[in-house]
Amino acid sequence: MPEQKKLDDLFLDTLKDMYYAEKHIAKTLPKMAKAARSTELKAGFERHLEETEGQVERLEQVFEMLGKPARGKTCEAILGLVEEGKSIMEDFKDTPALDAGLVSTAQAVEHYEIARYGTLKTWAQQLGMPEAARLLDASLREEVATDKKLTQLAEMDANRRAA
Amino acid sequence: MPEQKKLDDLFLDTLKDMYYAEKHIAKTLPKMAKAARSTELKAGFERHLEETEGQVERLEQVFEMLGKPARGKTCEAILGLVEEGKSIMEDFKDTPALDAGLVSTAQAVEHYEIARYGTLKTWAQQLGMPEAARLLDASLREEVATDKKLTQLAEMDANRRAA
Repeated sequence: MPEQKKLDDLFLDTLKDMYYAEKHIAKTLPKMAKAARSTELKAGFERHLEETEGQVERLEQVFEMLGKPARGKTCEAILGLVEEGKSIMEDFKDTPALDAGLVSTAQAVEHYEIARYGTLKTWAQQLGMPEAARLLDASLREEVATDKKLTQLAEMDANRRAA
Repeated sequence: MPEQKKLDDLFLDTLKDMYYAEKHIAKTLPKMAKAARSTELKAGFERHLEETEGQVERLEQVFEMLGKPARGKTCEAILGLVEEGKSIMEDFKDTPALDAGLVSTAQAVEHYEIARYGTLKTWAQQLGMPEAARLLDASLREEVATDKKLTQLAEMDANRRAA
């Protein structure tokens, strides 16, 4: 008989996926800040790096609540998203559309995180872990706010330059 | 001097990415419908397949407005997202958490599409293509609605079974 995996296994699995993803994002953001042409976008990526480090710590707290070691699991989705971002950085290097492309990449990453934190928060509630749900919700709100700021930046700045 | 690529190049590039992604999603949804345990989730994936086919047609209309052939470009992000979904389908096969995992995968895919259609719609507006923006907005609204329906399904059904 197959092992009857349940929601707590799925929760731990997705927590590991997100831990890997956040660490990969933390490694990628400095490259995006370096590539960005506008100072506002550079500053935005640097601010988000600080937030990302806080989000990694929150995930570590959730692992601790579960009594499990904080360990990542290769997240194919984030690797694919970052790969696309790299192609844009190469293809649009030194062009007026570069920042619009960087913002677009960052928003795709934000939406991945919004989906995953939304799911993890709901599962934490269902598993009777209100404190974990609160931590995951804090990260979710930060990602939603970052996505909105990126939309504003895109509309105000990068796209106008690129057009 | 490097070729000065602009927003219209980035728009076409991202349109090709999305065209590839939608076609890949259309191939994946029947597998997800087959795997789903609950009849509501099966029906949800089947309905979304019909919507996806309509979204492919809208993208073809936008290619036509640009005077370009409708052609996809490998989208690493969607390949990664679908790969993660496959792992969940294998790891949680025949378990009570399978549907929760399928919903989680579908929501990650929806959020990728929400990010991309949001970006494409904004760029179409900036490029003075209101009709293209209208088509992209129609797909964006469908994706947002699907994401909400998946949240309801997850909260009502799959997670309760899995817990």
